[in-house]
Amino acid sequence: MQVAAYGAKSATSDIEPLTIERRQTGAHDIAIDIDFCGVCHSDLHMARNDWGVAMYPVVPGHEIVGRVTDVGAHVKGFKPGDLVGVGCMVDSCQSCPSCDEGLEQYCENGMVGTYNGDDKVLGGHTYGGYSGKVVVNEKFVLRVSDKLETKAVAPLLCAGITTWSPLRHWNVKKGDKVGVVGLGGLGHMGVKFAAALGAHVVMITTSAAKGEDAKRLGAHEVLVSKDADAMAAHTGSFDFLLNTIPVKHDLNPYIALLKRDATMVIVGAVEPLEGFHGAGLIMGRKRIAGSLIGGIAETQEMLDFCAEHGITSDVEMINIDTINNAYERMQKSDVKYRFVIDMKSLKAAA
Amino acid sequence: MQVAAYGAKSATSDIEPLTIERRQTGAHDIAIDIDFCGVCHSDLHMARNDWGVAMYPVVPGHEIVGRVTDVGAHVKGFKPGDLVGVGCMVDSCQSCPSCDEGLEQYCENGMVGTYNGDDKVLGGHTYGGYSGKVVVNEKFVLRVSDKLETKAVAPLLCAGITTWSPLRHWNVKKGDKVGVVGLGGLGHMGVKFAAALGAHVVMITTSAAKGEDAKRLGAHEVLVSKDADAMAAHTGSFDFLLNTIPVKHDLNPYIALLKRDATMVIVGAVEPLEGFHGAGLIMGRKRIAGSLIGGIAETQEMLDFCAEHGITSDVEMINIDTINNAYERMQKSDVKYRFVIDMKSLKAAA
Repeated sequence: MQVAAYGAKSATSDIEPLTIERRQTGAHDIAIDIDFCGVCHSDLHMARNDWGVAMYPVVPGHEIVGRVTDVGAHVKGFKPGDLVGVGCMVDSCQSCPSCDEGLEQYCENGMVGTYNGDDKVLGGHTYGGYSGKVVVNEKFVLRVSDKLETKAVAPLLCAGITTWSPLRHWNVKKGDKVGVVGLGGLGHMGVKFAAALGAHVVMITTSAAKGEDAKRLGAHEVLVSKDADAMAAHTGSFDFLLNTIPVKHDLNPYIALLKRDATMVIVGAVEPLEGFHGAGLIMGRKRIAGSLIGGIAETQEMLDFCAEHGITSDVEMINIDTINNAYERMQKSDVKYRFVIDMKSLKAAA
Repeated sequence: MQVAAYGAKSATSDIEPLTIERRQTGAHDIAIDIDFCGVCHSDLHMARNDWGVAMYPVVPGHEIVGRVTDVGAHVKGFKPGDLVGVGCMVDSCQSCPSCDEGLEQYCENGMVGTYNGDDKVLGGHTYGGYSGKVVVNEKFVLRVSDKLETKAVAPLLCAGITTWSPLRHWNVKKGDKVGVVGLGGLGHMGVKFAAALGAHVVMITTSAAKGEDAKRLGAHEVLVSKDADAMAAHTGSFDFLLNTIPVKHDLNPYIALLKRDATMVIVGAVEPLEGFHGAGLIMGRKRIAGSLIGGIAETQEMLDFCAEHGITSDVEMINIDTINNAYERMQKSDVKYRFVIDMKSLKAAA
């Protein structure tokens, strides 16, 4: 079926109206009318082909919340009218060790991205959530509680799970001293989750002004990374660091903050990082790790936790026809903390 | 007491004969006549003040094996005539959480290095094993089995424990695919230990010629890191990497070799490393860590394992008056795989 969407026709074009083909609802598929779609920094990177892997047209969007309109013959557990979410993946091989362990994001045969993935059904590539409808295999559809403000749930599907998964995998718990480095879409969720898990949360940021807002989000302390004395006072004191900085940066000051055997997990910088001093890791058996979104079961766990604890993203709503302006503001970090597109605006434009 | 030794009087001087002061045997001390002392790359770095922390005169040497000549009134478990070893540490606070856990190398109040540490008894700084005698607190003295060739035991006290500790801490076990990167003093022990622990050991080296020798040491495969096709064939296949490269290098090719959730431990490069690509860690939740020597109990465990499995270092014996030449050869990696000083040569020179 033909569906209205917005996307980029080339690396240099703006995001503009398009029509895309969506598959019919297969036996294991769920058709969804999209209500809201969050705007992730990677939407912008892919639209502009910053990573050199874009396939055009690029229809971004992998923070999708909407209502089920149709389910395939073999679908159990979902019915029309259900509130659901779709995150960064719409398929995986479902047979490799990673998939068997519920870690579809690390599928050894390659998970299928919600956009710019290889479309196994229609051929070509997948199209994301800047569109009116999407059809997704039931295994990649999440249940969303109607206890939460729906529009503010959308960013949980990427920014939320990206921060939740490492906090859980590295077993952040009550009493741990956790630093969240960088306060953007990812960082603001990291602060909320770490606080909800009972950690003592320190917002580590370049700007004292940003830090104040972090306290509203749940941070107990603010550490300004440009303040050498303050950084020195926290040396060797952190049980865990969640590093959400999205660009190349010096890791050494953050490594110094870790306790012996503690880990800093990088979730934001999908790009080359500066070098670090070997002694920084050696003297204290410290660790640097990476983490990519989260598995489907873990994403559901996160959504359920959010429903129980009343956690959502801080969002600024936009209409689809202002998306190019939103990208410009994102590049200046001028958003608290995630743009979400009200997809009614697409229907109005259509 | 005055003891004959060899050391550097300044950053630019050769290693030359000196006389140093050793303390009397205290109630908890053990006095040792040194038979053999291994030559570690850090001896050279410290003698030349490459790390900017040297205190002169520098008497290097922290791979010490000798015989007990005297024990303090409260010493239990050691007696004159016992064969013993001393490694990189001669003291620590023995009251912090790291010391309580048997991880004296990470003592939070600073472990006392065997040389160039703060001497708590005599004041000034500690002097290492390029000398005839040493007096050490019993807690930092290791038992050495006389089943092993004594001179080839000396390097176990640093090169041995430095590679053993991460292999054990990261639980390398039978059937794991383990890569040892770099074949020098550390790497050759890493190969021996990983093989003895039952791992499938791949020697990863720049030179196919070096690799052949690695097979003699126990490696099952050789991977030449300059061979892009060979490296690609091993992508994502290693359970653990022990990185012994002693100098700045590109981490990206090695990160690519790791399986999901696998760790590369850096033990050699106590210096700034090149940057790496964030995606390399993120796509697979991979980890980079550091590791410093090992605790005293773990060092004893390693020595006992060596006695049981007949493992020693491959050594080239030298007399103390050829140490400057040995340093020059070490800088060219011209040693298989560790120089050991026969300390009888010091007595002969005295």
